[in-house]
Amino acid sequence: MNVEDVEEALPKIFEFDPDLLVFISPNPSISGPANVRDKLSNSGVPSVVISDAPGKRIKNELEKQGLGYIIVMGDPLIGARREFLDPIEMAIFNSNIIKVLAITGVYRIVHQEIDKLIHSIKTGSSPVLPKLIIDVNDIRDRSDFNNPYAKAKAIAAYELAEKIAEINIQACFVEKESDKYIPLVACAHEIAQIAAKLAEEAREIEKYSDTLVRKPHSKAGEMKIKTKLMLQPKLDEKLYRKLLEK
Amino acid sequence: MNVEDVEEALPKIFEFDPDLLVFISPNPSISGPANVRDKLSNSGVPSVVISDAPGKRIKNELEKQGLGYIIVMGDPLIGARREFLDPIEMAIFNSNIIKVLAITGVYRIVHQEIDKLIHSIKTGSSPVLPKLIIDVNDIRDRSDFNNPYAKAKAIAAYELAEKIAEINIQACFVEKESDKYIPLVACAHEIAQIAAKLAEEAREIEKYSDTLVRKPHSKAGEMKIKTKLMLQPKLDEKLYRKLLEK
Amino acid sequence: MNVEDVEEALPKIFEFDPDLLVFISPNPSISGPANVRDKLSNSGVPSVVISDAPGKRIKNELEKQGLGYIIVMGDPLIGARREFLDPIEMAIFNSNIIKVLAITGVYRIVHQEIDKLIHSIKTGSSPVLPKLIIDVNDIRDRSDFNNPYAKAKAIAAYELAEKIAEINIQACFVEKESDKYIPLVACAHEIAQIAAKLAEEAREIEKYSDTLVRKPHSKAGEMKIKTKLMLQPKLDEKLYRKLLEK
Amino acid sequence: MNVEDVEEALPKIFEFDPDLLVFISPNPSISGPANVRDKLSNSGVPSVVISDAPGKRIKNELEKQGLGYIIVMGDPLIGARREFLDPIEMAIFNSNIIKVLAITGVYRIVHQEIDKLIHSIKTGSSPVLPKLIIDVNDIRDRSDFNNPYAKAKAIAAYELAEKIAEINIQACFVEKESDKYIPLVACAHEIAQIAAKLAEEAREIEKYSDTLVRKPHSKAGEMKIKTKLMLQPKLDEKLYRKLLEK
Amino acid sequence: MNVEDVEEALPKIFEFDPDLLVFISPNPSISGPANVRDKLSNSGVPSVVISDAPGKRIKNELEKQGLGYIIVMGDPLIGARREFLDPIEMAIFNSNIIKVLAITGVYRIVHQEIDKLIHSIKTGSSPVLPKLIIDVNDIRDRSDFNNPYAKAKAIAAYELAEKIAEINIQACFVEKESDKYIPLVACAHEIAQIAAKLAEEAREIEKYSDTLVRKPHSKAGEMKIKTKLMLQPKLDEKLYRKLLEK
Amino acid sequence: MNVEDVEEALPKIFEFDPDLLVFISPNPSISGPANVRDKLSNSGVPSVVISDAPGKRIKNELEKQGLGYIIVMGDPLIGARREFLDPIEMAIFNSNIIKVLAITGVYRIVHQEIDKLIHSIKTGSSPVLPKLIIDVNDIRDRSDFNNPYAKAKAIAAYELAEKIAEINIQACFVEKESDKYIPLVACAHEIAQIAAKLAEEAREIEKYSDTLVRKPHSKAGEMKIKTKLMLQPKLDEKLYRKLLEK
Repeated sequence: MNVEDVEEALPKIFEFDPDLLVFISPNPSISGPANVRDKLSNSGVPSVVISDAPGKRIKNELEKQGLGYIIVMGDPLIGARREFLDPIEMAIFNSNIIKVLAITGVYRIVHQEIDKLIHSIKTGSSPVLPKLIIDVNDIRDRSDFNNPYAKAKAIAAYELAEKIAEINIQACFVEKESDKYIPLVACAHEIAQIAAKLAEEAREIEKYSDTLVRKPHSKAGEMKIKTKLMLQPKLDEKLYRKLLEK
Repeated sequence: MNVEDVEEALPKIFEFDPDLLVFISPNPSISGPANVRDKLSNSGVPSVVISDAPGKRIKNELEKQGLGYIIVMGDPLIGARREFLDPIEMAIFNSNIIKVLAITGVYRIVHQEIDKLIHSIKTGSSPVLPKLIIDVNDIRDRSDFNNPYAKAKAIAAYELAEKIAEINIQACFVEKESDKYIPLVACAHEIAQIAAKLAEEAREIEKYSDTLVRKPHSKAGEMKIKTKLMLQPKLDEKLYRKLLEK
Repeated sequence: MNVEDVEEALPKIFEFDPDLLVFISPNPSISGPANVRDKLSNSGVPSVVISDAPGKRIKNELEKQGLGYIIVMGDPLIGARREFLDPIEMAIFNSNIIKVLAITGVYRIVHQEIDKLIHSIKTGSSPVLPKLIIDVNDIRDRSDFNNPYAKAKAIAAYELAEKIAEINIQACFVEKESDKYIPLVACAHEIAQIAAKLAEEAREIEKYSDTLVRKPHSKAGEMKIKTKLMLQPKLDEKLYRKLLEK
Repeated sequence: MNVEDVEEALPKIFEFDPDLLVFISPNPSISGPANVRDKLSNSGVPSVVISDAPGKRIKNELEKQGLGYIIVMGDPLIGARREFLDPIEMAIFNSNIIKVLAITGVYRIVHQEIDKLIHSIKTGSSPVLPKLIIDVNDIRDRSDFNNPYAKAKAIAAYELAEKIAEINIQACFVEKESDKYIPLVACAHEIAQIAAKLAEEAREIEKYSDTLVRKPHSKAGEMKIKTKLMLQPKLDEKLYRKLLEK
Repeated sequence: MNVEDVEEALPKIFEFDPDLLVFISPNPSISGPANVRDKLSNSGVPSVVISDAPGKRIKNELEKQGLGYIIVMGDPLIGARREFLDPIEMAIFNSNIIKVLAITGVYRIVHQEIDKLIHSIKTGSSPVLPKLIIDVNDIRDRSDFNNPYAKAKAIAAYELAEKIAEINIQACFVEKESDKYIPLVACAHEIAQIAAKLAEEAREIEKYSDTLVRKPHSKAGEMKIKTKLMLQPKLDEKLYRKLLEK
Repeated sequence: MNVEDVEEALPKIFEFDPDLLVFISPNPSISGPANVRDKLSNSGVPSVVISDAPGKRIKNELEKQGLGYIIVMGDPLIGARREFLDPIEMAIFNSNIIKVLAITGVYRIVHQEIDKLIHSIKTGSSPVLPKLIIDVNDIRDRSDFNNPYAKAKAIAAYELAEKIAEINIQACFVEKESDKYIPLVACAHEIAQIAAKLAEEAREIEKYSDTLVRKPHSKAGEMKIKTKLMLQPKLDEKLYRKLLEK
């Protein structure tokens, strides 16, 4: 999105009179997204920027602007070379990365942060905006695995996602000849496929001992938790206590 | 989206003065989406409804409203039971279905139909709106596989997607007790996982003989095609001839 | 088997003076098998018809004829098109379906029903002939899985078997051109392969927690049960109580 | 089958006035089957004994009796220990062995030998009874694989089947304590599973290059052959020439 | 190693004034290795010969020479035919066999025997040299699996390793024509690959229940043991008691 | 190896009066290996150091010392934490890395460099010592894959090997608490397992089209090459021309 797109689209968002704004951008430092950040910062609406590795460079700026942020280090750039910008190739790549980010718990962290903000807004307390850079330590310390090998495989899947980012940056911005960058992108996309498989295997382990954790919301939006497949979700006490503490 | 949501959001879309509108709804027959359809129909803007199986029931209505439509029969409902409405579970399910719909060629059909509309609009000719119900025959007749077993596996993945839809409807709307519906949803989600694997296998077969087709757009938006991994995309002659015919 | 075959072969069976007759036919409504049913019905010998989906249509007739029946809805027709009527192809298809029906518990239900009849006959009580239509609900409610995801995968395998039946009927009786039916049969046989794999996976889960149930007969024909691999089978108390109740 | 069973059942078979008799027995040297062989030998009806490894010991006797024979060395004994004589376990074991024997081409050899006999009988020429001991050399020299690694994997699957036989004989007839024989049978059944997977992989390789051979019979019973999936079967010239030579 | 190599190299080893000598040879009966055995026998240094199947033939000789021995029956000969003596092919074969011998516990037995000798030497007691022929019974009785199916799969992997040896001997020393031995070696190497996979699967089972046993040495060389992944290794009491008994 | 070990062992090596010395060390910069390098440098014997990533830091020093070097960037450190220093764990890790380095072609480069040196020495020409840092570009440019996806998967396996190195350095030298380093090492070892699988898959692709390249030496030590499995190796013309050029 360039600056003009932003100028055209963003005002309409504010017309909805939002309580909370979530702005997702792979690179919030370039002009269009920078413009968005300015406007969010000045709007007085609690706002969170969700981004990947390039977002880390403007961390201080985000803090000065009073914006919350969730930066996912392991959310890799696609292999953005003409040869691979086929809609099918891209959808498959995204399918693999979605699986990795979901199973390793990145999505869990993201939605729970948003959940907390919504909870604050609903209860009238002032929302504490997240300031998170999600890296492999968060997968290790915050994911929901019962089996330690499941967790090890999930961490591995996440590390692979970071590796993909590294290779695709090389392939897209450093190598100039197609003989050099095509094998690199193809390799990165193969790693995406195997990372998804590894993440899936982590989840399967939890199924094998019927310890897979699910956290659906209740109809009223409360955070619930269930482990054994055949049992009902219950209120997630641990999470609620955390919310009250704040 | 209910009717009020539509009344609030849709006018802002028209403020962009769009050349083309694509409306995606899993069930365009209920009140909110019906309201959208009315407004699209009256707007004079060329509009396409993308939907899944429930959309088939209002095919005649869509035609009367002068709306284009692409109805994907094998895009299944998620297991929308509380126990499974965990954001992670849902993301994984979607990841699997994305992979199936991408690899089997459903996404190819969808984006090429949109491509054609954009082409018409850009060249000033009047756009012919698609009237498509995508079922297993389209996978068989329109997909890009060179190896017939790859195609057979892709068709199988698509058939499985249809089966998931069937089971989840039973689980969500027919069975009342959790002892009955939980195993069904769990089963449907297992099928989603194995359907994604089967689709992936179909794609791997094409890699094994270096016959995997990719169709990236050129920078100018032209439809290109490439097969051998190390070669460059070329203009997709066959597709262009089709466009000229119209 | 046509009527003449039946007239020639069946009398010889009766010469053995059997206590029980089990008649297996994929479609017991056509003339040959219908002739068999008549003869069984008139013979006075307790008789059970085992069939698949087409057998369901003559359920009432079977009841009137005083015949027991076990109709397995998920026992699919092979892809009976010339191109696939290769003995090797057929053996592989059967191998896959045997694995699905064995692991999901269909064979368990069948042999236990026969076991009960033999028990009645041996103890001189009058045999209660089975009247069973085995569908996915029976897999859900009667199978021996300890892990609920193992059961979900088994149910999935069974659902796939039903899907195969559906596709092969389309391929064998509806589509006329080989360009249309070959991909469908090939697809159905791919599903058979993956259904077998899914069933196998269900069984593996039980191995992983050493909870796989085996039910060998004792030398005297008693029904025994064992779970932990290294332990000996014991009398299956639950099953015996059921037998005594009748 | 013991001798009395034979005395009761076999005469009824002769009442059909058969042109050809095929007698299948895992061990044709023990009393019941020996009785059968005598009767077949004296009947004047062309007869073929199909057996596995134990049959090899009576090869000379079979020749003296004027019986044809097909002895399949790699058709292993099941793990016939009480703990494993569960109908489900046995069906799964058989499913795996069927897959191995079908894919490696053992079934092809068997049915073609029978085909040739039927051809002779139909054309009024005197049938030349087969005298075959099928071992790994036959898999190597007679199987239909185009890809040499597919053949290597098929041979491997067959070798594993022979290994299973060896282990199960140890487990069933040598080891006395359950602590010793249970792990051996469990191991043999695991090998059966992986042998089936290996055979399947061999077949998949042929699918990947669309070179999988199928040999359906025509309606008139002629032997046909096809390779490319989408093409029709043709008369198997090579096979017919062989038939004429005899 | 021929006799001259031995004459040149071995004296230098003795110059180190070793406390213990371990001599590894695939076939210790031929001249070079026989020369080594003589010299070890006469050296007075406690010596152990590690060998595979051919070593079994000289068991008595080894005992007379006062040499310890560990003969691993399931350590197969590579497919030593020119076509396969590619360094990459050989490294892959070895990689597979290492995995099998490690996971099935062969390496455990070997290093614990050496550990015991070192312990004796360190504590000044006279070392009891091992006299071991490791076959499938040792895998069954001495391996560290908690799950009985993991053990069954490990035994299966070991049995496959023995089968490889058998096939490669046939391929290397019996068959003369490349048309005959190439498929056999290729088959043996495929079995090596699948045996490694089977062994790996055995280990995965233990991970799934977090019961995988690891036995690292302490810095001081003590034998320790750990099971749960996140816990620390402890002194291996059982093993130490065994050592004290001697 | 510390300095004393070197002082004791190395002189004996020189007593063999070697034509060529190959020195393998994971970290040739520390005191023991540094001592070795000095002695090799002063010996006048052509010498090559083979090392992994840490060796890169002393590249200039190696050149000054007149030593050849082959530094393999993707040969990762094992997870050298007490909990994982179990001989079995280590053997499995090595098995996986061997497979990756063999299949991706690292071993090919290494042995061909040694081959060239031997060739020079045998023909009396002065050996040109290798100065190689093997990274992902070498895999891309020098490996023997015919299928570009096989190559992409091989590159991916190699990239994973580099990632393992990175994680294990973090786990072994940065993290202090076992709660932090155990999951990291476990993760690195999982990546090793999946990297081996990915490399294996690359090799399988070549089998599927019978294009797998093997390069056995002739009995006389000539470099030969073969591709189709059933054909004989021929002299590797391309390689020989390269040798003559030097």
